[in-house]
Amino acid sequence: MPKDKKFVESITSRDQDFAQWYTDVVREAKLCDYSSVKGCLNYLPNGYAIWENIQANLDRRFKETGVENVYLPVLIPESLLQKESEHIQGFAPEVAWVTHGGLEKLEERFCIRPTSETLFCDHWQKTVKSYRDLPKIWNQWNSVLRWEKTTRPFLRSREFLWQEGHTLHATAEEAKKRTQLMLDIYYDFVTKDLAIPLIKGQKTESEKFAGAEATYTIEAMMHDGKALQSGTSHYFGSGFPDAFNIKYLDKNNKLHSAYETSWGLSTRIIGAIIMVHGDDSGLVLPPKIAPTQATIIPIAQHKEGVVEKAQELLKRLKIDGIRVKLDDSDKTPGYKFAEQEMLGIPIRIEIGPKDIEKNEVIIVRRDNGEKITVNIDNIETEVHNILENIQLNMYNKAEKFLNSHIQKATTMEDMINKFKQERYFIKAMWCGSKECENQIKADTGGAGSRCIPFDEEKISDKCICCGKKAEHMVIWGKSY
Amino acid sequence: MPKDKKFVESITSRDQDFAQWYTDVVREAKLCDYSSVKGCLNYLPNGYAIWENIQANLDRRFKETGVENVYLPVLIPESLLQKESEHIQGFAPEVAWVTHGGLEKLEERFCIRPTSETLFCDHWQKTVKSYRDLPKIWNQWNSVLRWEKTTRPFLRSREFLWQEGHTLHATAEEAKKRTQLMLDIYYDFVTKDLAIPLIKGQKTESEKFAGAEATYTIEAMMHDGKALQSGTSHYFGSGFPDAFNIKYLDKNNKLHSAYETSWGLSTRIIGAIIMVHGDDSGLVLPPKIAPTQATIIPIAQHKEGVVEKAQELLKRLKIDGIRVKLDDSDKTPGYKFAEQEMLGIPIRIEIGPKDIEKNEVIIVRRDNGEKITVNIDNIETEVHNILENIQLNMYNKAEKFLNSHIQKATTMEDMINKFKQERYFIKAMWCGSKECENQIKADTGGAGSRCIPFDEEKISDKCICCGKKAEHMVIWGKSY
Repeated sequence: MPKDKKFVESITSRDQDFAQWYTDVVREAKLCDYSSVKGCLNYLPNGYAIWENIQANLDRRFKETGVENVYLPVLIPESLLQKESEHIQGFAPEVAWVTHGGLEKLEERFCIRPTSETLFCDHWQKTVKSYRDLPKIWNQWNSVLRWEKTTRPFLRSREFLWQEGHTLHATAEEAKKRTQLMLDIYYDFVTKDLAIPLIKGQKTESEKFAGAEATYTIEAMMHDGKALQSGTSHYFGSGFPDAFNIKYLDKNNKLHSAYETSWGLSTRIIGAIIMVHGDDSGLVLPPKIAPTQATIIPIAQHKEGVVEKAQELLKRLKIDGIRVKLDDSDKTPGYKFAEQEMLGIPIRIEIGPKDIEKNEVIIVRRDNGEKITVNIDNIETEVHNILENIQLNMYNKAEKFLNSHIQKATTMEDMINKFKQERYFIKAMWCGSKECENQIKADTGGAGSRCIPFDEEKISDKCICCGKKAEHMVIWGKSY
Repeated sequence: MPKDKKFVESITSRDQDFAQWYTDVVREAKLCDYSSVKGCLNYLPNGYAIWENIQANLDRRFKETGVENVYLPVLIPESLLQKESEHIQGFAPEVAWVTHGGLEKLEERFCIRPTSETLFCDHWQKTVKSYRDLPKIWNQWNSVLRWEKTTRPFLRSREFLWQEGHTLHATAEEAKKRTQLMLDIYYDFVTKDLAIPLIKGQKTESEKFAGAEATYTIEAMMHDGKALQSGTSHYFGSGFPDAFNIKYLDKNNKLHSAYETSWGLSTRIIGAIIMVHGDDSGLVLPPKIAPTQATIIPIAQHKEGVVEKAQELLKRLKIDGIRVKLDDSDKTPGYKFAEQEMLGIPIRIEIGPKDIEKNEVIIVRRDNGEKITVNIDNIETEVHNILENIQLNMYNKAEKFLNSHIQKATTMEDMINKFKQERYFIKAMWCGSKECENQIKADTGGAGSRCIPFDEEKISDKCICCGKKAEHMVIWGKSY
């Protein structure tokens, strides 16, 4: 049955060519494709539905901590972007400029927002006067644009979707707390809902966000051993607010600086889902964010009663809150199986005349291929249990992979050799200098500092590169 | 207590100066404000939360009919925008142009999307090959930009938020059905959830969308008698698909044209909510989309047990699915009352020591000021009932207003006089010519054709303007 195998045969083996496998999965699962606008993606229904579930689950967590959503303009006047000097230096080379409105040339250029710190600060400068106006805990779900040279689906594109949270506080302490809280929320969401294990830590000076005092990150390991920065939370201190002249009157009527944070998570995370969980049959989606959690596939569906029974199950599972679909199209069962696997739908439910006779269905798990015979009377409970089990199993599998691919090194020779063998994470001590960071990157063929993890270990006293006194243990790795 | 009255005193009377009243309500209810980007709004938490509820309620209805969400790029290459000639003529004068990416001048200009027909068609041209690929029932929630000269909050701004649905079908019949279905969904949503009565109809040739074969509309009447176009659904025939060379192979392997629709509803509708329901105390929100449906306000809250009892009610109502807040801040009750009224929160629940003694609360309705004493034991049921009642009452009140302000005219003199007295809707016959449309607009000081309503009446045989044979009855009115 060559037709049934179409999906499976159309993707490259993951271990043979990881990059090609990734591109193949994105295309065959119809997640996104390139538009006629160079470097800009069309987010297609299968891909966008994943993003909608990510939005729903993350937004709920945000709102539980008092976050309010807003929407600020897509355009930023050039003069506004220039107000914070590090920020403009970081972003000016990679923004798109609007120079004409309708038939007229504009007096001042606008850039399409690469990020919106300047817009938030501009608004707060006009509206925040007193301690009564604080805190502001705002977020927006939007798209941003950065004029990248090379692009890859979800991982790097000129326009991408994300949320950017921006908050303003009366005290540094409160702002720092919020920075950590949002990092914790990302951690909770990515580990629990996306089943992706993470390393939490702080970015080094050279890797932090343009204009921030400190940048915190969650780092994930893809199946090829490369890191993917999966979410960041920035503490700005009062640098940005001061540059925008945001001051508030405290209870004693004294003028005070305000303190700011920002934090973001983008559609890059869809790339992480693919590269952490996917396999040679295609996508594998964690049940908690899978747009479809189960597909019912009738076997010998021309026989009397099969489609009717399948429809009955569909109805029962829907009522019970399962995101379920029935595929009673005229494609062959084999084709439907391959399609369900390619799309990463967590389970398929096979039901044929013999199963109906025995009051049973066969449930096949996408994560490990296991076939489970289930009595129809208990189908709701069983499906819920299996989905929960898949979610857990996917996390455990990915965690095992991560833990078995983190190694330590105390000499450059050891580190270089380890990176030559496998491109995974290496823990090593570092003196804190940019020079050593660059040197390590050059010597290892591109392994940069991913973060200073919160659970630092003291591997030795000396910087692995220069031998001077070590300040921190750093996780080094190649990355997307 | 002048401080308590602050909110109420800060807005202009609605009947005295409607335009100023509108601006005052938008500002005092903190729905949106102008950013530093001329003509672009900041959608602030109170305004954006209304939009989030609109999105949720409309998106649910869309998905029930098989709509899938996508996201296509913010930029459109100039050559793509030019592919359909009426379309480019309609939009070229009002788009913003990106000419530089990073530090380089672009070879081809991009415009920021004013609408996305061209992007959808461009994608479908590449991907739709066979009848198996149809239909496509797609939608996106995004922002668009049109370089308007004059702007007003929600009603007209350079950037605005909306949804734009785009569908592609194998037959004209199916596409026409979809066009009507989406108009019906808008009608259902706006009348039921926003409590705004509507007139459904078709736009005249001169008022239809650039490139469409037919445009259908829902028209609402604001409290000043002006119309607001609240949602539109367009049937394109195969004009756009043909211009983009979208053809599909049917079951007999013959090449066929495809048929397209698009339909949109924007943040303008928030302007309609304000102008249909608002009063001299501020906003009045329909319970179904109010971000907060009830505020609990403790009276004499320093007294023992008051705040505790209020918190207990808060918890009970939340569990029961009511969007409820407790205001136990140190503001005076009078200030809190005025604030709840300004924000348009459907009910407030007053609870003080005497009420607690009697096991009662006082519920005050925002829509009519009625005070209702409610036994605490039944509070969940009572609150649900009152909210439902408010929703109905708001619709009935607005419907009564609309019906009592639609009049008929058979002579120009009569029509002109009626528009001089009150700026409401006039039903009159029309010959179908653009000249008469323009003449009527000129003679009435700006009343245009709002639509040819689906429930046309035959008022006379002759066009009210030229006296020639009448083709249609048109609803005429001034508009936003």
